[in-house]
Parts: sequence; C-alpha cells; structure tokens
Amino acid sequence: MLRELKEAVLEANLALPKHGLVTFTWGNVSGISRQDGLVVIKPSGVAYEKLTADDMVVVDLDGRVVEGDLRPSSDTPTHIELYKAFESIGGIVHTHSPAAAAWAQARRPIPALGTTHADYFYGDVPVTRPLTKDEVERAYELETGRVIVETFRERGLDPVAVPAVLVANHAPFTWGKDPAEAVYHAVVLEMVARMARDTLLISGGEAQMDAFLLDKHYQRKHGKNAYYGQPGAAH
Amino acid sequence: MLRELKEAVLEANLALPKHGLVTFTWGNVSGISRQDGLVVIKPSGVAYEKLTADDMVVVDLDGRVVEGDLRPSSDTPTHIELYKAFESIGGIVHTHSPAAAAWAQARRPIPALGTTHADYFYGDVPVTRPLTKDEVERAYELETGRVIVETFRERGLDPVAVPAVLVANHAPFTWGKDPAEAVYHAVVLEMVARMARDTLLISGGEAQMDAFLLDKHYQRKHGKNAYYGQPGAAH
Amino acid sequence: MLRELKEAVLEANLALPKHGLVTFTWGNVSGISRQDGLVVIKPSGVAYEKLTADDMVVVDLDGRVVEGDLRPSSDTPTHIELYKAFESIGGIVHTHSPAAAAWAQARRPIPALGTTHADYFYGDVPVTRPLTKDEVERAYELETGRVIVETFRERGLDPVAVPAVLVANHAPFTWGKDPAEAVYHAVVLEMVARMARDTLLISGGEAQMDAFLLDKHYQRKHGKNAYYGQPGAAH
Amino acid sequence: MLRELKEAVLEANLALPKHGLVTFTWGNVSGISRQDGLVVIKPSGVAYEKLTADDMVVVDLDGRVVEGDLRPSSDTPTHIELYKAFESIGGIVHTHSPAAAAWAQARRPIPALGTTHADYFYGDVPVTRPLTKDEVERAYELETGRVIVETFRERGLDPVAVPAVLVANHAPFTWGKDPAEAVYHAVVLEMVARMARDTLLISGGEAQMDAFLLDKHYQRKHGKNAYYGQPGAAH
Repeated sequence: MLRELKEAVLEANLALPKHGLVTFTWGNVSGISRQDGLVVIKPSGVAYEKLTADDMVVVDLDGRVVEGDLRPSSDTPTHIELYKAFESIGGIVHTHSPAAAAWAQARRPIPALGTTHADYFYGDVPVTRPLTKDEVERAYELETGRVIVETFRERGLDPVAVPAVLVANHAPFTWGKDPAEAVYHAVVLEMVARMARDTLLISGGEAQMDAFLLDKHYQRKHGKNAYYGQPGAAH
Repeated sequence: MLRELKEAVLEANLALPKHGLVTFTWGNVSGISRQDGLVVIKPSGVAYEKLTADDMVVVDLDGRVVEGDLRPSSDTPTHIELYKAFESIGGIVHTHSPAAAAWAQARRPIPALGTTHADYFYGDVPVTRPLTKDEVERAYELETGRVIVETFRERGLDPVAVPAVLVANHAPFTWGKDPAEAVYHAVVLEMVARMARDTLLISGGEAQMDAFLLDKHYQRKHGKNAYYGQPGAAH
Repeated sequence: MLRELKEAVLEANLALPKHGLVTFTWGNVSGISRQDGLVVIKPSGVAYEKLTADDMVVVDLDGRVVEGDLRPSSDTPTHIELYKAFESIGGIVHTHSPAAAAWAQARRPIPALGTTHADYFYGDVPVTRPLTKDEVERAYELETGRVIVETFRERGLDPVAVPAVLVANHAPFTWGKDPAEAVYHAVVLEMVARMARDTLLISGGEAQMDAFLLDKHYQRKHGKNAYYGQPGAAH
Repeated sequence: MLRELKEAVLEANLALPKHGLVTFTWGNVSGISRQDGLVVIKPSGVAYEKLTADDMVVVDLDGRVVEGDLRPSSDTPTHIELYKAFESIGGIVHTHSPAAAAWAQARRPIPALGTTHADYFYGDVPVTRPLTKDEVERAYELETGRVIVETFRERGLDPVAVPAVLVANHAPFTWGKDPAEAVYHAVVLEMVARMARDTLLISGGEAQMDAFLLDKHYQRKHGKNAYYGQPGAAH
C-alpha cells in the first residue's frame, strides 16, 4: 500500500545524508496521505545505506502500526501531532543539523536577518519553551509535538509561512507540502542558522532587517503575484 | 545568437556549485555583449544540473527578453543597472555565499585586513545602505542595482579596482571583465569574508592593514608594472 | 592469534579518517580480549592507508609486546590503564579531533546542552586536571591514564554512562563495548563539541539543559526500558 | 638538471590543493639542493592541475633563473632569503590557508595551547612585525624574507624547532628538511590555527599550557630519545 508515498519518503530520507544534515541515523522524514489518514515514516535507528521503500512503516493517526515489520521512528508521535494540527502540510523532517541545533540549545529563535531567510521563512524561526518535567516523563514525544503546536498557536504563526521550528535544547523540525519540500526547508534552515550565527559574531550581537524587505522577498517567491522561478514550477 | 557568450555564461553558472558557493538555485551569472547591447543570463529557479546553453536567456538593456523560452533570473534588472553604470565590466555574479552574506546581514563592509584581500580588492568591500520601503516596494531589483551604483559613486570607488559589493541584509554581487572573472572574484570574496570574520574573532574586534601594503599587493597583480603570474596571463 | 579482534581494530582505525576525525597518523584505536588479558592496538606513526590486520600489535596488560613486528602506539600505557580501571569496556579511541581538542585546550568540560549530547553522554564530558611536572616527566602516558581514572573516581562518574573524557591541553579519549562503538562515540563527541561551541557563541556564554530532559534522552536509548532503534540492535 | 628535486617540488605543490590549503594558485613550494646552491620553485600563477616537473623553475641564490621557460613564483626572493639564513632547511611552503592567515591578519602569534601544537612546534608560532612603508616599496619580497629572519634572530628561535612563521597582515610560511616535510608542517599549522581560534572562543580568551608538557610532547617526537613512530621513520 501507499507505494508512491513510500518511495517519496525513502528518497527524502536518503537526501538527508546527501545534504550533510545527518550523522549516523539521526534524522527522519515522514509523509502523509491525507486521503487515507495514514503516515509513512522511517523505521527507528536503521542505517541510511540499508533503507528500502519496503522498510518504511505505515502508521495511522493514533500511532498504531498498520503495515511494516520494523518499529517506526521513536519521534512518530511528534510527527502525528504536527500532521493533526497543521492540516495543509504533507511531509515532516527532523534532524540534528549542527548550526540549527546550536540555536535550539541556546534556546533562541533564529532571527530573520537577510533575504536568504526571508525567501523561505516569513519571520523568525521560533524556539519552543522547554518542556516541563511532567511533560518529559509522561509522554515525551507527544508533548514535543504539542509544544510546537502551542508555540505556533500562541504567537499566531502560520506553519505554511514559517515551515520550521526549534525545540528547546533539542533540534529542528521542518515541514512542507510533501517530504521533498520538507527536506528542502531543512537544508535552508541549516544554512540560515549558520549565516545568523556568523552575523552575530561579525556585528557583535546587533543585527536586524526591515519588515518590508522580509515581506518583499517572501512574497516574490510565495505570494499570489510571485515572479521568482518559472511559472508553475516549485521553487 | 551569441553562442559563445551563452557557453561562457553557462560554464560560469556551473562553476558556482563546483566552488561551493551556492545551495540549490541561489545564484546567477550573466555576461554582456557590449557590441550588441545584449545581456545573457541564467533563467530563474532552474536547477544547475539541468542547465544547457540554450536555456540561457538573452535580454536587451531595457530588460526585454530578446531570445529564450524561460523567464530570466528575477535579479535581471539589478544586472542591467550595473552593466549600464559600470561600462568596463563584462560579467556579473550574484550568490548567497554564507560568509559574505553574513557580512551583508551585519551591514558591515569587509575590511581589507591582509594581502589575500589586497590581491583582488583595492580597499574595503563596501556595503550598501538599506533600501527604503518605497524602493523595495516600487522596483526592488532595479533599486538594488541603483543603490550599488550610488554606493560606488558617493564613495568615489572604481568598480574595476573593487569588483564586489555587499547589499545590506541581502548578499554579495561581484563582477569582472567576463563571466569567468566574475566567478573568480566571487570565490575570492567568500574566502576573504571567512578570513576577516576569523580575524575579528581572534583579535577581539581590532584589526587593520597599512595602506602601503594594500597598495603594493594590488599593484603587483594589477598595476601597470604588475609582475605576478606569467606575462600576458590573467591571474 | 586474536584474528577477529585484529580485524575489528583495523577496521575501527580505518574508520577514523573516513569520519574526518584524524589528520595524518594522529589517532589510534585498540580493543581488548578480556578472556586472554590481551590488548590489540595500532602501531605507532604508520599511515592509515598502509595498515593491515597483521600490523596490529598485541600487548599484555603490563604493556609487553606479545606479538607484532612494529612498535605499538606511544599511547599504549594510557589505553592499558583505562582497560584495567574500566572493566566493562572493550575498545578505546584516541584522536585530536579539532572541536573536542579545542575544549580540552580550554580546560573546560563539554556541558550537556541538548539531546544530541544526552543520547550518548549522561552528563557533561569531563576534563582532567592538568598533569603535574613530575607526572609528565616520569611516566607521561601512564599518568595520562591515571588522571583519567582519577577524574571518573573523584566525580563518581560511570565510564559506561559517560564514555569520553578530555585530557587537559591535549585531546579526547572515548571508549565503548568494542572498538566500533568507541569510534561511534568519538564521532558523536566531535559533533557535540562543535554544537556546544556554537551554542556558547550564539547565547553569549549562558546555556543549560534540564536534568530531567538529559535523563529522558539517555534512558530512551540506553535504559532498561529503551525504545529507540530496533529491538536487539545496537544504536 | 635536478630531476629528482623537481619531482619532489612538483609533488609537494600538488599536495597543497589535495590538503585543502590553497584556492586557485595561491601557494607555492620550493626545494633546495645545498650541494648545487640551486633552488627549484613553482612558476608564478600557473594552475595546479596543469603543472609538470618540467615547469619547475631553477634559480640560484642570487635569484637568477638558471633553467626554465616560466617566470618563477613572485615570492622567490622570500624563499631564497630563508634558505640563506636557515641553513638546515631543505623545503619551504607558502600558502594563504585561512585559519593561519586569520592569525596573521590579527597580528597575533599562534599560542602553544595543546599537544597537537607541541608535537611539531616547540613554542608559539611567531608573527613578524609589519613591514615599513620603505621596506614594502623598495624590495617587498626580499624584505618579507628579512623580517622573518629578524623575527627568529631577535627572539632566539631555532627554525628547526619552530618550522613556521606568520607574516603580519599576510599569511604563513612553513619549512622542513625537504619539500614534503614543509607541506606536512603547513597542514599541521592550519589545524593548530583552527584549534587555537576555537579555544579562544570557548575559553573567552584565556588559555595556556604548561612548559613541561610542551617540552615532553616535542621531545617524544623530536628529541634524542624520541619514541613516537617506528625506529628510523620520519614522523
């Protein structure tokens, strides 16, 4: 079942080491079939070079394994929570890519400081509050999903316009309309995390960009009158 | 038409990912035929691995597409503005190379701190003022070109002696006598941006070089009595 | 003798340059046969590309060469001291991987700042006190082993839960249940050293993680109810 | 003439891009035949991928070309000055490797902070004073050699024990008993420059190592009772 989605999820998982975003097995990608209410996700702790489409695990939105011989990623409850809350997204990526993880460890949002950021993220990439002891001990991965959703709800953020988040003391999650776009955003996030880190270093801590420049760059790629790229093409 | 220039522009575009200067499609190179008053430029948002010489778009100095099936780079008006103002240049490169972009985001010129810089840039690499809201909203890419030209005019800079600029909160543009030399300068710029960043880190923020050393290094490569390299060769 | 262990030690040594952890010959891996009381270790100063399983040197726990034509690694007395004190470990790695070495040179422990760290190291990665003049001059490599053991004893650390140490002004040692796991920990250590360095840079020096998050992440991989990865698999 | 030395100098030059130390043509290696009083050096500004042994230029100790169709490296007078003053060296390397160049631009010596440094450099790697206007304008490359020699003479440094220097606002020179060892030292220098930079970042600027540890590490590799590596082998 879901052959095409499994292939897309496999390919997106394999793209992570290709882009230098993961060490060993530290990353996972999932995709959802909204029609079937089923999520396809990487199995937990399997080396990328051995993954096949048949290894992908199918789970329903209650987290029950519907198909697959392997245990799904331990982060599956986080993915499911995001699919439930962010209804327009089709793929999710989790990595520990080092520059983005450093911002998460510093518990700081990645500030929008330039057009590279504005081309894909319509404002700062937020960081969640730290989870409480109770949340961590009771249902850690589920609560990780919930605190991401809380972060977007409380700040009135649109997950389509800001397709990334940093989980405090942990690492980033990104998403997109499908698994491939979620990977694309993971690559961009790592790059803007590096640039923002170096900007702080160079400027001695002070830096900002004008809201109208952020707006312009985001809209020329994603607004209704977008004119970047070829008509009808993705990026 | 312009077969040779298209090949040169294609090759220069392909050199960008080879030198590690671009992620995905974030970069573009153009070249000009001064005789024909025509610019050849990369199409917008097309993956590098798929580009062919025939994909290159030919535009005139009013920005009208003269030949080509694809939409030209969205940065085309910036390129044209630079070709009009800087009459001796033959090729232009735009990238978001990370170290140079970090200086642009910090709104700081890259100071001339050593001979690596002085070998190619005869003084600091300037940063433009931020564009105004009006400029951004009215004709963003055109105004980006204008603010670069303004930066050189107001500071009395020679674009041949300083073949690079940082656009505030954006990223670098570099240029040269042809597309290949513009790429060469983009590579050098990223390297001197990294070195200058690390110099600040090591020195705690203070650093400078003597004007006569800057002068010597620039002149031994580019002055009328230049003696670096082989007689008649480029670099 | 010990054919299988020699192959494992060779493979682990070759993994060091593959993971970018060593320059030239600056690294060594050993493995122990607890049953035989014998250690297999890389010969000193031999280039990785020339190493064969037969080049591996067999030494007993008094440091005497039992088999092998080459001189064992000059760090052999350090390895032996660790095998004697940490009875459950089966492999040891020493590298000068640059980010971890920078922490060692700064004489600072690598603080546990995120889940990447917590997944493998159950707390800060400690740094030893500097050796005294007497220790350095009398029996340097042996005393290096002793000061590592002293560090773990005095702080009540379990070498299985924290399989790494920084030797002050020197570089890291890591270990594991076998040579391959020791290499795995060396790779993780370098990554968390980079992330922690960048976290300090971003946060301006302040950063911490909650003990219960550290606990959760370590236990979900290594506790008795671990649920990361596939049942029965290593990582 | 000097066929073997030309091959050694060619190979050493080709090793520079292989180790990631040079961009474009920014580096050069030479070797000397003490018996003949002749230096073999890379031609100026020729791309590495096109170099052959026959392109190497032979010059005498007055800087006159004795053999070769190409112009020798513009840094030839610096090399010659070092060969004259440092009588036991057989090869010299000049690069603009970025981390070492950043220290040179900061006009700071690279402090001996750990054993990676101590294994090859017996103390801080010194930085020259900036050249005067007169020195730069009169005989720049010759004076660069002279200020290096002055730095070693005034501080009582032994060029065999400290086979590297930073020229202020410029970049490093390293040397060794032959061209290959000079390259080896250039690689080590770049690595210790990176480590020292990161050590400053982590420690907030304060760091040091004990003189007796520096002494021990240097001597176990290079002293008369050296025991690192295999008997009779180089490193």
